[in-house]
Amino acid sequence: MTTSQPLRVTIWNEFVHERNKDAVKAIYPDGIHATLAQALVRQLGEQVQVRTATLDEPQHGIPDDVLAATDVMLWWGHSAHDQVADERVDAVQRRVLEGMGLIALHSAHASKIFRRLMGTGCMLRWREAGEKERLWITAPGHPITEGLEGEFFELPATEMYGEFFDIPSPEELIFISWFSGGEVFRSGCTFRRGRGKIFYFRPGHETFPIYHDATVQRVIANAVRWAAPSGSPYFGQSRNIEPPLEPIQRTHLADPSLHRHG
Amino acid sequence: MTTSQPLRVTIWNEFVHERNKDAVKAIYPDGIHATLAQALVRQLGEQVQVRTATLDEPQHGIPDDVLAATDVMLWWGHSAHDQVADERVDAVQRRVLEGMGLIALHSAHASKIFRRLMGTGCMLRWREAGEKERLWITAPGHPITEGLEGEFFELPATEMYGEFFDIPSPEELIFISWFSGGEVFRSGCTFRRGRGKIFYFRPGHETFPIYHDATVQRVIANAVRWAAPSGSPYFGQSRNIEPPLEPIQRTHLADPSLHRHG
Amino acid sequence: MTTSQPLRVTIWNEFVHERNKDAVKAIYPDGIHATLAQALVRQLGEQVQVRTATLDEPQHGIPDDVLAATDVMLWWGHSAHDQVADERVDAVQRRVLEGMGLIALHSAHASKIFRRLMGTGCMLRWREAGEKERLWITAPGHPITEGLEGEFFELPATEMYGEFFDIPSPEELIFISWFSGGEVFRSGCTFRRGRGKIFYFRPGHETFPIYHDATVQRVIANAVRWAAPSGSPYFGQSRNIEPPLEPIQRTHLADPSLHRHG
Amino acid sequence: MTTSQPLRVTIWNEFVHERNKDAVKAIYPDGIHATLAQALVRQLGEQVQVRTATLDEPQHGIPDDVLAATDVMLWWGHSAHDQVADERVDAVQRRVLEGMGLIALHSAHASKIFRRLMGTGCMLRWREAGEKERLWITAPGHPITEGLEGEFFELPATEMYGEFFDIPSPEELIFISWFSGGEVFRSGCTFRRGRGKIFYFRPGHETFPIYHDATVQRVIANAVRWAAPSGSPYFGQSRNIEPPLEPIQRTHLADPSLHRHG
Repeated sequence: MTTSQPLRVTIWNEFVHERNKDAVKAIYPDGIHATLAQALVRQLGEQVQVRTATLDEPQHGIPDDVLAATDVMLWWGHSAHDQVADERVDAVQRRVLEGMGLIALHSAHASKIFRRLMGTGCMLRWREAGEKERLWITAPGHPITEGLEGEFFELPATEMYGEFFDIPSPEELIFISWFSGGEVFRSGCTFRRGRGKIFYFRPGHETFPIYHDATVQRVIANAVRWAAPSGSPYFGQSRNIEPPLEPIQRTHLADPSLHRHG
Repeated sequence: MTTSQPLRVTIWNEFVHERNKDAVKAIYPDGIHATLAQALVRQLGEQVQVRTATLDEPQHGIPDDVLAATDVMLWWGHSAHDQVADERVDAVQRRVLEGMGLIALHSAHASKIFRRLMGTGCMLRWREAGEKERLWITAPGHPITEGLEGEFFELPATEMYGEFFDIPSPEELIFISWFSGGEVFRSGCTFRRGRGKIFYFRPGHETFPIYHDATVQRVIANAVRWAAPSGSPYFGQSRNIEPPLEPIQRTHLADPSLHRHG
Repeated sequence: MTTSQPLRVTIWNEFVHERNKDAVKAIYPDGIHATLAQALVRQLGEQVQVRTATLDEPQHGIPDDVLAATDVMLWWGHSAHDQVADERVDAVQRRVLEGMGLIALHSAHASKIFRRLMGTGCMLRWREAGEKERLWITAPGHPITEGLEGEFFELPATEMYGEFFDIPSPEELIFISWFSGGEVFRSGCTFRRGRGKIFYFRPGHETFPIYHDATVQRVIANAVRWAAPSGSPYFGQSRNIEPPLEPIQRTHLADPSLHRHG
Repeated sequence: MTTSQPLRVTIWNEFVHERNKDAVKAIYPDGIHATLAQALVRQLGEQVQVRTATLDEPQHGIPDDVLAATDVMLWWGHSAHDQVADERVDAVQRRVLEGMGLIALHSAHASKIFRRLMGTGCMLRWREAGEKERLWITAPGHPITEGLEGEFFELPATEMYGEFFDIPSPEELIFISWFSGGEVFRSGCTFRRGRGKIFYFRPGHETFPIYHDATVQRVIANAVRWAAPSGSPYFGQSRNIEPPLEPIQRTHLADPSLHRHG
């Protein structure tokens, strides 16, 4: 039941702000994806094999063969959600349904892929003021909280995201954030779609060094392990079953040719 | 807190099979939508005001003003899902997020609007054999089960739908079906998206007289009442909040112009 | 489908602090139950028929015949949870499973009946400092939020309750509280147990006039309507089913006398 | 993040039928616990360290030190639920809240500990006829389904359990059973209580060789791994927090001595 195969992680970043804004470049000189990649390798060592992909690469760096070879994908985007090709969004969604884990970070709440998987608008209140955030643990037994020692952890200066956050009710609510400006937010949320596991994690911003924070890195590493493909195969296609598993009494159908699904 | 305003219900039907197949015409001479409309009026009387809409009408019969004047929408489609314009799917989704109830019937599992709101493929096993279905109640306190007297109800001859049904985990699981051919199915499922309530109800088919069944009619009428808009307003837009509700200590931001959401 | 029968509401209060502490008596001279009863009648008029019951009455004022004639029960207790007889807790639990709604208010988080129905410890962080609370709506379409106009409502001075709140994951999370002292809390939570609906609502305290607040009163009135019995009957007993609904192939059993359930 | 420590598993069995009924002794000569222990060791090898405990031992074989040294507990009981001391039930519940996993097998649905953790009656329909059961997977990505290759698995002859099963809505529904006699059942259900994970698994009976089935053994082994303690510590006690984390404006309290929780 154990495996020595490393988890294959692909970190996707639109990689725009880090190239055109000095303030962001100062914090993430090689891009947010590079910082995240280093953090994952530091945390998980040989348990992971990390690659990165960015918007400006052909097929955004995530052609079908890369997706097929990805166990867990991290997604970071902010200013260029609209530039992601719908065709690639379709492909990522298919892979999630088949079992690929997806970790949507911070402003990825508004990405095409996250909104696609949620079925809602995913919008929220926000404020760019560098205020304090305190993340409270509401699911202490969850593997994503592994290694957190207290009842909460803090980020001294962040962008605020506040409720109402227009997502479906999360299957597991891991963190709720308190902000000094008066808001709260469901900051750590899990969802299952098809065979795939999804984790939305609020912290992170391009002008604050959030992804250099050790606790944030730990949570993301935990989430990568949690979101790894597991369980039985995905049976997601339309499938006409004849003969039945058990003998049945059939009722006459006028025109069976009517029936085609999906 | 009470209101004498009737619920405004729009029953949408692709209305294809009833016109081009004699077997279907025999069961639903004026279309499935007409049968459902009569049933709702019989069940709910002056509590509802029912209109119908079909695929071949301009804007499929559901232009923005009709959607704006709809509290609960029923959706039936089977062979022409692809002919529904994406622009109308967008509009229906928006209205659901704002609070319109949606009841997806039977083969509407594969409709664009249902798949959009679920974020998954929504496919399933199926068999067209007219076998027996028994629907077990798994949420006895739910308003959608009002008036059902036993632990289950039966349909003598139906199309089978079986698991794995590729939907997100329902928020409330109301019915599980047993089929004589050996399958089970989550046949009554509720979901919330934005401010809107969604009910998926499996029974129904164009070549079986399912929508003439009194219990099926009762469940649909219950669902219409349950799915009616309620509660507080929908705050679903991206909203930048300044000044904050509480005094905060601001951290310098290099370039606030970076930040635009949604 | 409509009924002119009023909802029969029983408000239970331990009624201790209001008699032995002047500070509490000043706010609730006739007891918290009396204030709640007046508020419900003002909000719901002839839709409800309200009675009250207190700890010091025979059988705590809730003998079986009172329970049998109660559709929704409100529960308030703080200092005398241990004085509630287990036998009455058993009786209330049975009635909830059969369909009676239960609204647990504030410090009722630690009551025997709430802990019984949750299966957990239900403890929390708290602070008695009269700080500000802001309740954010996280389920805008829910009937319990009916009539609330904004994204949140506020209480200027309250006792603080903070996470981790040791409850099972709520089925619907209606409110999350922000406290000026730095905590958050899941303040409006629904649960189903058997055929009964349960709402936990955090606001309320004996030394703050929380139950005189119009919004708090509105939420409680909404909850009473939401928690009313509905749906199909409760089949909760152990039941041996012979003959089976469908013909089966029986496998020989060595000793059927072994098997008795529950 | 990895550990070489084996999971400490305690298998609890009331161990009554295997001693007083020849039919049961023939299938489980050393008790169901012995069969389960051998299966776990065969499946998980050095990943687990297994001990067993039975009703007739002092403190039912689960004194506090054994509980403290248990990561995951399996529970099997049928005819002697009432003989389990409430004091031991309290102790097991406390350990689950602290993080110990609990796997309740088959007729353990009616055990004191399972009912305590659920807060409901946990009763169901049943029939002792040795009919066919087919378990359908409804959560294909779940670790508990690891290694199952098809859409379902079958047991040729079992006791039937049918809905309505009086449990709270499961957090994850892993299996739904189909029975040839006409019933369905939520056969694999997960719950979180405090920091602990709970899995209810329906298959198993003393007069059918269910626990000799390789797939059943695989699911139980998967569940042991899934239910292992994980995540952050459990903060479950009542805790008065002074001073607050953030500066607050205090409102005068007439008598702070009123307030003591839990």
